Amino acid sequence: MRCKRCRGPAVVEVRRHNAAFCKRCFPEVVTEQVRKAIRRFEMFDRGDRVLVAVSGGKDSLALWDMLLDLGYDVTGLYLGLGIGEYSDRSHDIAEAFARARGAELRVVDLAEAYGFDIPTAGRRGSRSTCAVCGLSKRYVFNAAALDGNFDVIATGHNLDDEAATLLGNTLRWNTEYIARQTPLLPARDGFVKKVKPLHRLSELETAAYAFLRGIEYVVEECPLVAGNTQLRYKEAMNAIEATSPGTKAQFFLGYLDRGMPLFAQNDDDVVLQPCGSCEHPTTGSFCAFCRARAQILGRRLDGPIPDDDREVVRASSDEVMPAEIYGRTA
Amino acid sequence: MRCKRCRGPAVVEVRRHNAAFCKRCFPEVVTEQVRKAIRRFEMFDRGDRVLVAVSGGKDSLALWDMLLDLGYDVTGLYLGLGIGEYSDRSHDIAEAFARARGAELRVVDLAEAYGFDIPTAGRRGSRSTCAVCGLSKRYVFNAAALDGNFDVIATGHNLDDEAATLLGNTLRWNTEYIARQTPLLPARDGFVKKVKPLHRLSELETAAYAFLRGIEYVVEECPLVAGNTQLRYKEAMNAIEATSPGTKAQFFLGYLDRGMPLFAQNDDDVVLQPCGSCEHPTTGSFCAFCRARAQILGRRLDGPIPDDDREVVRASSDEVMPAEIYGRTA
Repeated sequence: MRCKRCRGPAVVEVRRHNAAFCKRCFPEVVTEQVRKAIRRFEMFDRGDRVLVAVSGGKDSLALWDMLLDLGYDVTGLYLGLGIGEYSDRSHDIAEAFARARGAELRVVDLAEAYGFDIPTAGRRGSRSTCAVCGLSKRYVFNAAALDGNFDVIATGHNLDDEAATLLGNTLRWNTEYIARQTPLLPARDGFVKKVKPLHRLSELETAAYAFLRGIEYVVEECPLVAGNTQLRYKEAMNAIEATSPGTKAQFFLGYLDRGMPLFAQNDDDVVLQPCGSCEHPTTGSFCAFCRARAQILGRRLDGPIPDDDREVVRASSDEVMPAEIYGRTA
Repeated sequence: MRCKRCRGPAVVEVRRHNAAFCKRCFPEVVTEQVRKAIRRFEMFDRGDRVLVAVSGGKDSLALWDMLLDLGYDVTGLYLGLGIGEYSDRSHDIAEAFARARGAELRVVDLAEAYGFDIPTAGRRGSRSTCAVCGLSKRYVFNAAALDGNFDVIATGHNLDDEAATLLGNTLRWNTEYIARQTPLLPARDGFVKKVKPLHRLSELETAAYAFLRGIEYVVEECPLVAGNTQLRYKEAMNAIEATSPGTKAQFFLGYLDRGMPLFAQNDDDVVLQPCGSCEHPTTGSFCAFCRARAQILGRRLDGPIPDDDREVVRASSDEVMPAEIYGRTA
């Protein structure tokens, strides 16, 4: 096979585009897709300070790499989840990448900063491990971005992630989550703007990018993720994609074109107020993160939790996407 | 396990309801579901003449059986598709059921009435075999209902069918088809009312009903259906259902509750006119069935087919559900 751009020997085939690319052209083609996504959704520009959430996996490192190459003002944020060797290796890899690229990496350790790690949270709280992990990521990313005066948080969610999340939310007709599954969530009150510049790239494409660019990344899945609902949605999508290449892209990008406008909601009637414990914005008296944390640490929150707060608890524990940083549950 | 209703020995387990039933109670429970669906959607009542589309499979025979038991004025319609032994056996079984129940069965043979059978149509036309079969069924059912002065056409689509169709339409964000995937499509112009009374029952439930009621039905799938997209959507749904029982019901019934209102469209601006060949209503100059038929038979339609007709051809060949009798493509 020949590269579609330069006719040189191809190394990566993109089945859904019926195209192949050489090792030099492929990273450029992929980066061009990201550049277009940033421009189309007006995610950020040169003057903005971008905080990229870095897990040490292929997606977030590829994103960081591209944003640096494109000349943006971008800082990495690594959140230590305390998941044994998996977290240690992820941290080392993120640090090594930052050193190699001369980029700044900020580190927050969940246990040091908030008194619990994810394995403990999964055992003690009422939420599943993946749910409390997603909730913690959303909260800490936002808190770190506010703290560091960043204009925007960028995450490495790829097309496979987005399609699987959308499938999960659609299977439940969870219209509120569907409405919010956009590549750009604007800033609001105490919530920093959030963007997903890789939403047009498949997992295979980000992996090939990382490989061709010689980026070392954590290959294994999180050891706590086995049996995760999200993984099963990915498997279902992969089974369909195998016989109908392009289904994932058609599903998520078709949603952005034709589905999203139908789900768009007027958020103006949602009243946010400061959490009684941490003062971050929330719809209840205390934010979901502080409530989860109090439960895990066996502490009482200051002041009573009124009955009407239960609705928020139910909504946040019902959430589909563990690694999802979106949503108003922080 | 014990029957949830009478505590007798259970023979059927319904995992998504976490319940089991004995051989006497199960058919009653299932029939009660159908009775509720008919009432809730105001599908038809005692005075209406109901035409039930009978393929010889478990769903359509179970439906016919229940409607007879419930005392409705119901006539069967068998459409001979000309698919070799499969069609012969289906026809025999439908006739045998009608005789045993003293019910009326009308028979239309596609080759006799319209000059082609489905295997020929699949080879000669531009549509896939399943697409032209679905189109033909929709057309003939409607024509037969008009011809016989029936008030409503009932089909045996079950929950698995509906969930798979909805998945296919949603993966493409085919908003027009999603909007029309309701258990009741009201009559309009030359289109007879169409209903799906089994939409709350899973494939397993209709099969168990037919078995317990001693109904002989064609067990094998249509031999032309191998590789059919619809089957792959069913497999994907089954894979998710296996680990999350209730997903199919949540998906389709959740759509009816929360999704459908978002997709509802104003159909008033769609102008229907008589097909230039058969005079059935259509949005173009000639209806999709007459165009397909002309192509298969190698005949010219009377009068030119204008360019703007291509949009309708594209839309109808894009359809997901082969056995689906809904849609305006007839």
